[in-house]
Formats: sequence, structure tokens, C-alpha cells
Amino acid sequence: MDAKRLDAQLRFVLEIDKLKTVFRATWLTDGSRKENDAEHSWHFALMIPLLAEYAADAGLDLLHAVKMALVHDIVEIDAGDVIRYDFAAREAVKAREAAAADRIFALLPDDQAAELRGLWEEYEAMATPEARFAAAIDRLQPLLNNLATQGRTWQEHNIRKSQVLAANAPMGDGAPALWAWARARIEQAARDGWLIDA
Amino acid sequence: MDAKRLDAQLRFVLEIDKLKTVFRATWLTDGSRKENDAEHSWHFALMIPLLAEYAADAGLDLLHAVKMALVHDIVEIDAGDVIRYDFAAREAVKAREAAAADRIFALLPDDQAAELRGLWEEYEAMATPEARFAAAIDRLQPLLNNLATQGRTWQEHNIRKSQVLAANAPMGDGAPALWAWARARIEQAARDGWLIDA
Repeated sequence: MDAKRLDAQLRFVLEIDKLKTVFRATWLTDGSRKENDAEHSWHFALMIPLLAEYAADAGLDLLHAVKMALVHDIVEIDAGDVIRYDFAAREAVKAREAAAADRIFALLPDDQAAELRGLWEEYEAMATPEARFAAAIDRLQPLLNNLATQGRTWQEHNIRKSQVLAANAPMGDGAPALWAWARARIEQAARDGWLIDA
Repeated sequence: MDAKRLDAQLRFVLEIDKLKTVFRATWLTDGSRKENDAEHSWHFALMIPLLAEYAADAGLDLLHAVKMALVHDIVEIDAGDVIRYDFAAREAVKAREAAAADRIFALLPDDQAAELRGLWEEYEAMATPEARFAAAIDRLQPLLNNLATQGRTWQEHNIRKSQVLAANAPMGDGAPALWAWARARIEQAARDGWLIDA
């Protein structure tokens, strides 16, 4: 066994423990607190095989998509989480995320650093079937939690329906049937006053 | 699209949000609080592909093992978490866990209820290459966090080295090299006074 290699891998494993302390805008369904990136990543990863039948591309590689789900938020250890509806802030944080990827994935042996960096970049680009389906599920999970809490995040941040439709539109590419379901629920949320109908 | 099927799947997705409120004996590496089952499941699932080179069976199906990691603790929503070193309590909780599996997996459409129940039972039996490797990583993750916090869980519960060696021995079947590494660290922890040397 290559002790230096294992040591690098385990240093990375310990470093990413910090993802459990990066909190998001989404509330737990019981309303007790907001969820963190590690919890979100678990929920999201589990939904990939569970909802695979709704993927736009039936031939997608599920393990590859699950790996993307598991690593997609690691850069937020340094860069922090930015609410999906703040498009300007999400653009502004991209340089911090790239610097975070440089630091954190580089803890790994070179081959694995390249693999995980590649998974993250592939996810961000949303250009492969796996990335498109993962992007859909990454949006569906907080949407479900938000609907289960009467749109608590939306109400807290005075979010408009048009923002929610725009931010979640990539669901249409990765999982059209789930996007049709979600669109109807977003329209209903606006009628129920959980969202600003504009 | 089968609306009833999707409805059942999403009801399950919302139900398992509760795993984020089931706390474990393990501390986060920053010592700020204990971790919960959802966070543990994410960390564990990510370690499966990352450490796959150490699996006893090089031909294992990684997606299958990752799925096990993602679902292995769901029964604890009803049954609660029991510290690994309390062997009697872990036996006693088995009936509650089976009842939890009956209730929670049954929220899903029949085919998926059977699949997830099967994954959980396979994991518990530790009789396949995937289950044995998953069982090793399920033990390694809290061990790493515990070593990173000077054995805080061990010190809190007055754990003996013999308990730790016995509870983690299944690592030897699933990932012999990782078990060799862990055994040396456990011996060192006992010498450092983080464990009772008995």
C-alpha cells in the first residue's frame, strides 16, 4: 500500500467534513432549521437513482451522476452558499469557487484531484446527460422542501414567481416530466401567496 | 407519466428529510456539534468511489455500494441511532429497525420499495462484496472524525480499546488495507489515553 497516497485521500476526507457547516437558504421540512450542504448532497444523491426513470436521456450513467451530486457543493466550503435566486451574486462567486476547487481537490492524489475537479466542472457546464439530470435534481430537492414549508425561503427573501421559473428552468432539459410537475406547483404556490405573482 | 407513482416517490423523498434530525455519537471535526445521519450518509457515500481501490473485491459494483450507503440509515428515522460500541442495544434495536423499514420503504411504489428494502437487508447481512466494503467505509468515516477530535466520542462514553477493535473488525473483510491502517491508529489512540487500554 502507498501510505502517502492513503494519507492524502484521508486528509481530503477530513477536509470535506466542513461541508456539514455550510448552511443553505432551504429549510428542513419540519421547519426546525435550515439545511446544510452535506445534508442536501445526500438527499440529492439518493434522488438520482430513485428518479432516474424521469431523466431526459434514459441511457445516462447513474454512478457518474451520483458522483457529481456527492461532490458538486464541495467548493462551497471556501466560497459559501449563494441562494439560487440571486443571479448576480451567483456570477460573482464563480471566481471564489474556482479558487476553492484549486485548493480542496488538490489535497487528493493527482489522478483523483483531476477526476473530482472534472466532475465539478462537468456539473457546472450542464452539457452532458448526467450533468443535465443532476442539475434538475439539484433544483428539485430544495423546491420540494420549500413547497413542504409553504414557500418559507421564498417568503423570507420576497422571491417572485418569474425568478423561480427562471432559476429552475434547467430542469426542463434534464427531466422534462419533473419540470412539468414543478411548474404546476410553482404556479399554485404563487396563487397561494407563497411567492410574489410577478 | 404515472402521477400516482411520482406522488409516492416524492412523498418518500420528503419523509426521509427527517434523517437530517437523527443525531449520532460522532462529533464534527471542528468539535462544534455531533453529526447527523444524513451528513454521515453523504460522507460515507462519497468515500465509496474515493477509496474503492482498497476494496477486498476489486470487481465490486460501485453504484450498488453507493446506493447502500445512501439508504443504510433510513430506518433510524424511526429507530434512532445507537452507538456502535453498545452491542446489546444494537441487538435490541433490530426489531424497531425492521418495523421502520416496513413503514418507510412502503411509501414507495412496490418495485422501488422492494429494491430499497433489499439494499438495506443486503447491507445488514454483510454477505456480498458491496456490503462488506460499504460496512468497512461506514466504520472508517466515524473513526476518522473521532481520531480528528482526540477520541472525543470514546472519551465521552468511556470506551475500551477492545470494544473499538471488535466493533470495527468487519473492516478487515471489506477493506483489509484500511483495517491495517485503522488498527495501528486505534493502538496509538489507546497509548495516547483517548481510549481505555483494555
